[in-house]
Amino acid sequence: MFMYRPEIKVLDCSIRDGGLMNKHQFSFEFVRSVYKALSEAGVDYIELGYRNSKKKFSPDEYGPWKFCDDEDILRVIDGIESKSKISVMGDVGRVDMDDIKPASDSPVDMIRTAVYVKDIDKAIYMANEFHDKGYETTINVMAISRDQGPELDEAIEQLEHECKCDVVYIVDSFGALYQETVQHLMKRFKKVIKSKEIGFHGHNNQQLAFSNTIEAIIQNANRLDGTVFGIGRAAGNCHLKLLLGFLKNPKYDIKPILDLISKEFIPLREKLEWGYTIPYALTGIINEHPRTAMALRASEDRDNYSEFYEDLVNSKMD
Amino acid sequence: MFMYRPEIKVLDCSIRDGGLMNKHQFSFEFVRSVYKALSEAGVDYIELGYRNSKKKFSPDEYGPWKFCDDEDILRVIDGIESKSKISVMGDVGRVDMDDIKPASDSPVDMIRTAVYVKDIDKAIYMANEFHDKGYETTINVMAISRDQGPELDEAIEQLEHECKCDVVYIVDSFGALYQETVQHLMKRFKKVIKSKEIGFHGHNNQQLAFSNTIEAIIQNANRLDGTVFGIGRAAGNCHLKLLLGFLKNPKYDIKPILDLISKEFIPLREKLEWGYTIPYALTGIINEHPRTAMALRASEDRDNYSEFYEDLVNSKMD
Repeated sequence: MFMYRPEIKVLDCSIRDGGLMNKHQFSFEFVRSVYKALSEAGVDYIELGYRNSKKKFSPDEYGPWKFCDDEDILRVIDGIESKSKISVMGDVGRVDMDDIKPASDSPVDMIRTAVYVKDIDKAIYMANEFHDKGYETTINVMAISRDQGPELDEAIEQLEHECKCDVVYIVDSFGALYQETVQHLMKRFKKVIKSKEIGFHGHNNQQLAFSNTIEAIIQNANRLDGTVFGIGRAAGNCHLKLLLGFLKNPKYDIKPILDLISKEFIPLREKLEWGYTIPYALTGIINEHPRTAMALRASEDRDNYSEFYEDLVNSKMD
Repeated sequence: MFMYRPEIKVLDCSIRDGGLMNKHQFSFEFVRSVYKALSEAGVDYIELGYRNSKKKFSPDEYGPWKFCDDEDILRVIDGIESKSKISVMGDVGRVDMDDIKPASDSPVDMIRTAVYVKDIDKAIYMANEFHDKGYETTINVMAISRDQGPELDEAIEQLEHECKCDVVYIVDSFGALYQETVQHLMKRFKKVIKSKEIGFHGHNNQQLAFSNTIEAIIQNANRLDGTVFGIGRAAGNCHLKLLLGFLKNPKYDIKPILDLISKEFIPLREKLEWGYTIPYALTGIINEHPRTAMALRASEDRDNYSEFYEDLVNSKMD
């Protein structure tokens, strides 16, 4: 554990998960700065957003990174030297499969399919299509802290035997996992999944995104998500800088990320809130989606925690 | 691990460790609010500051919580119902031993002696004196990430065989430990120390104070430090609310802490900086005292990270 493992690959999803906090309205210049710095830092994959359907979401309401048109991606990467691969994410039920060109005609290298356990069949269908079109593929099993019954074992079996994806991700959407639950889940996945890599995507509600990622590494996860300055929905994600500081792989360089934080993310954080706050910690402890906490933070009552907590506990008991 | 362990006792050191950020200048009303809320929350020990000598530090420069006179403590606790015990800390070389009255004449229940490994003999002498005067005692081994050689094994042997203290604390002063190093250290201490409890005090430079505390719990540490909203030197400490949320002991109630954060700590945080920032993360990764990072945060260059990082790395290599 104190030496690096060359198989480990890091994906930055700052623009994709961070976009959940501003309806994917990042400017082209901002996304170019992020892409350039992450490329210089040697990050393996850079996820630029969702590949969701314009029939389901309006481009008047959402910015370009909700859709990730190939032309917009090409505008971002134009002229920037990079060895990083490009990833986009598709949610089950929100992708127009006819929009997806063959990989050879697209700047996208990888498509990640995000899914709740109950929809695993749909995700497998989608990932297999993406695979057949030539993309690298992953299936990201969301909100796993809520779906740990026998349905999860069935989904894991299906992923191993029916899915052509390269990676299966454990996604702690609610920031509810502790290192022991990560260890337990990793063992449960590893026991069945032999033909694919396992990935981990944490949320920082309880300040455990980084330590849970370390635990996943200890349990042989080789695909890890982080974001610049922890940007992401609600409490945000594992801080990329901490993760690269922990991994000893000499191919990574944190200096371009430090400059990116100084120049772009410190000013952005003044305008856009993400990261650890008490309400997000409470939804994490209680194992709930952060949406009620996000609503609180957007209201005048943003720092009225104990009433929020009572409502949260009561709504669970009612 | 998913059930509570009744032996576990939690100490809040908000006023003591937080005082390192404002020269111990908290007002009496503020300290009373903290003491009242923590008492209502059922926290086992409340640490109000240092018991350092006025011959070594000037009361003109430092506030009352650098000295913790019995009269000042009595003023804070007067009229507040509480089952919590009161703790103060003494640094090796900074306490006037003649200042210490017998425990029966003092509101203080416990004195913790903070020490670097090299001074362990002095700490044992002090702790034994405190013990003989009737106090509960601990020895807190600071900066342990830097002192892991054979001198540490010798210190551990001495603590077990020569010291009358009740608890030995592992203190991650630099926020440099990961869960694996915590596990390693806990095993090393537990192997020798059979007659005393082990405690853990983390710092949050890498957002690992809480997860390292969980790891210490898994390894059978029964004495745990936390602070309100993570207040403490530099990146601060383990968030008390997260810790109490993890422990399932029904004697703890987080609601008084939530109210205390809303009413006192959110406004305080506007005036006084503590908690995770990039420079503190960097000193943690590099295993250094945060003083250079604290100086950076107090300067105009506070968000110029990459130059700070290069200086830090170069100063280590020179």
